[in-house]
Amino acid sequence: MTGNPHPFTLARRAERMNPSIIREILKVTERPGIISLAGGLPSADTFPVHAMREAAARVLTDAPREALQYAASEGFAPLRDWVAAHLSEQHGMDIAPSQVLLTTGSQQGLDLAAKILIDEGSRLLVETPTYLGALQAFTPYEPLIQAVDSDHEGPLPDALAQAAPNARFAYLLPNFQNPTGHVYSEARREAIVAVARERALPLLEDNPYGDLWYDAPPPRPLAARHPQGVLYLGSFSKVLAPGLRLGYVIAPPAIYPKLLQAKQAADLHTSILNQRIVYEVLRTGMLESHVPSIRARYKVQRDAMQASLERHLAGVAQWVKPVGGMFFWLELREGLDAVALLPRAVEAGMAYVPGAAFYAQAPRANTLRLSFVTASPAQIETGIAALAGVLKAAQS
Amino acid sequence: MTGNPHPFTLARRAERMNPSIIREILKVTERPGIISLAGGLPSADTFPVHAMREAAARVLTDAPREALQYAASEGFAPLRDWVAAHLSEQHGMDIAPSQVLLTTGSQQGLDLAAKILIDEGSRLLVETPTYLGALQAFTPYEPLIQAVDSDHEGPLPDALAQAAPNARFAYLLPNFQNPTGHVYSEARREAIVAVARERALPLLEDNPYGDLWYDAPPPRPLAARHPQGVLYLGSFSKVLAPGLRLGYVIAPPAIYPKLLQAKQAADLHTSILNQRIVYEVLRTGMLESHVPSIRARYKVQRDAMQASLERHLAGVAQWVKPVGGMFFWLELREGLDAVALLPRAVEAGMAYVPGAAFYAQAPRANTLRLSFVTASPAQIETGIAALAGVLKAAQS
Repeated sequence: MTGNPHPFTLARRAERMNPSIIREILKVTERPGIISLAGGLPSADTFPVHAMREAAARVLTDAPREALQYAASEGFAPLRDWVAAHLSEQHGMDIAPSQVLLTTGSQQGLDLAAKILIDEGSRLLVETPTYLGALQAFTPYEPLIQAVDSDHEGPLPDALAQAAPNARFAYLLPNFQNPTGHVYSEARREAIVAVARERALPLLEDNPYGDLWYDAPPPRPLAARHPQGVLYLGSFSKVLAPGLRLGYVIAPPAIYPKLLQAKQAADLHTSILNQRIVYEVLRTGMLESHVPSIRARYKVQRDAMQASLERHLAGVAQWVKPVGGMFFWLELREGLDAVALLPRAVEAGMAYVPGAAFYAQAPRANTLRLSFVTASPAQIETGIAALAGVLKAAQS
Repeated sequence: MTGNPHPFTLARRAERMNPSIIREILKVTERPGIISLAGGLPSADTFPVHAMREAAARVLTDAPREALQYAASEGFAPLRDWVAAHLSEQHGMDIAPSQVLLTTGSQQGLDLAAKILIDEGSRLLVETPTYLGALQAFTPYEPLIQAVDSDHEGPLPDALAQAAPNARFAYLLPNFQNPTGHVYSEARREAIVAVARERALPLLEDNPYGDLWYDAPPPRPLAARHPQGVLYLGSFSKVLAPGLRLGYVIAPPAIYPKLLQAKQAADLHTSILNQRIVYEVLRTGMLESHVPSIRARYKVQRDAMQASLERHLAGVAQWVKPVGGMFFWLELREGLDAVALLPRAVEAGMAYVPGAAFYAQAPRANTLRLSFVTASPAQIETGIAALAGVLKAAQS
């Protein structure tokens, strides 16, 4: 008898599932004394703690029986109304509350979309690089994931058009993408939507970072331009708090019922206590002042990291200053391997995330991601100086 | 151009997904004035509202940043410890906290287990009848679902043994099953575990109702008898509140990592705010007095429904008085169709759930489920009298 004998046969898809490389890296790097620029977490300083506490007390005083009972799979009706109104007013989308499905974080939106759209062997298109969590959500459904050539404005329209025939969907992050921070220009958005229309290519648009702009708001979402052809994912994680696990999907009416059935099968509904707390916070209009305060904070830190990078890494790495989101994306000299260098960086007192994990195909070893939202400007300066020492030593 | 043109191609599995028949029925029957014995909801009178409000305030005062930030996919460590200790002390299971995965309700446990264990065409074994929500969780993974002959003590061991070869798992609800209320005897549990060991048949044991016993506690879980061969699902929905969406899976160590990867892909982690609130409630030991108070309340209602059934339906329907859980299961005279009769029952002022939806194969039309936990004894009496009128008219 060996180790832990058990009778279970795993599904084929389980063989393709892997532990999150980033979570494994974070375990190594989150030692005391290390300046971590590796995390993908928002700053806890931005959480509206007082408003959340008040809202929780109010919900559990005014409607405790409803907040603790089973609830509709679609989500809390006033919150669906709020989301529809918010997206219509703020993002130029013309949607009905009946198109809103509340999800257990937008990660669940990725899982549900994958569940209803991917068969074994279905071809999906993703950016180069793309969000790792999406690759993890899609992989269990056994698709072929094809990386589409991309530049600093997103996927190249010609490449997208060429890859489009019979693809089940293209997964796109137009605003301040994780990991690169890139934003699609107005022209690129129009070109991508034109391709989607011409080639009948469905789009899965993921927009967790859209409200985190520091210079000017991004152009309108793809979903505002092509409502019948886009499944749109949104999240409260970056503008309120991620621990609540609350996001939403906007679906074309013809797709909504299947998404809802997948939601029922997955977890019946998202915590109604959390939905009611968030609605209680939102209905006061607090986002109108809260989101600008997050922007102001993160902009200072973005500028601090830009200054530190210019000071220490000019000529050593290349980057585009992000105009929103949480990340800088660095390209190192060809031949350098960010995975191999990470232990030296940790030794020197800082941590980053190697970029290779974000590629669906042909990972580029000479890339890395830096978060500017959780470290202070002083920590950022120290961390970037330490990184520069490691990179310069590796190059010489 | 027709209706809502859209470019999406649905996955094959989406064709097999259906709206919850019960949810559709509930929409029809939850009119004002109807005595609904149809719901599967616990009574909101049992929710520990005061304790939840206090706990929420404490969590959002003492640890707001941690309660609102991203958290570990495995779940909140003190709550995993609590679950492991609770199951060891109360249910004779010998498990480590490292085997506990907190889930977004036990419905998510069903989905995750299905995701790692089912390939297209995999054969699963279920009871006759079985829990509808489990059928909904399994179906998207395209299994062949085989119903195993069952009596009032669960599946017949010989039938289970015969169906075992190459089955991916048997899904079993030993305690006060939804819909039948049946409980496996000690002897049946031993016989089923013997079959599972001999035939290397993995078991998925679902125990949402185990604490709701009214006469004597049920025998030990299957997982206590055969730890390496059982994935065990538990829930806080029936002993605290379902609106939180909080459950757990206990997995053999060899299976745990794949389940965890599936969890990460599905929703990253379960609301850490809710996990901390529940832990705050549990750590005071309140369950020790709270669960007996739920039992006392539901026992009165169980007895009221038994008395009403004896008064009005003796000779018209057959049932076994449930010793736990939330439901009576009625068998009507052959030839009667509970789906066809439901509109007449609603007309007469009451509602039930027809039993046919709970069968994976060969639905029995002459069955129905009655919940005794949300209606008062007076409402139960009125509702059962109305049902009796409908059934007697249909028989004559």
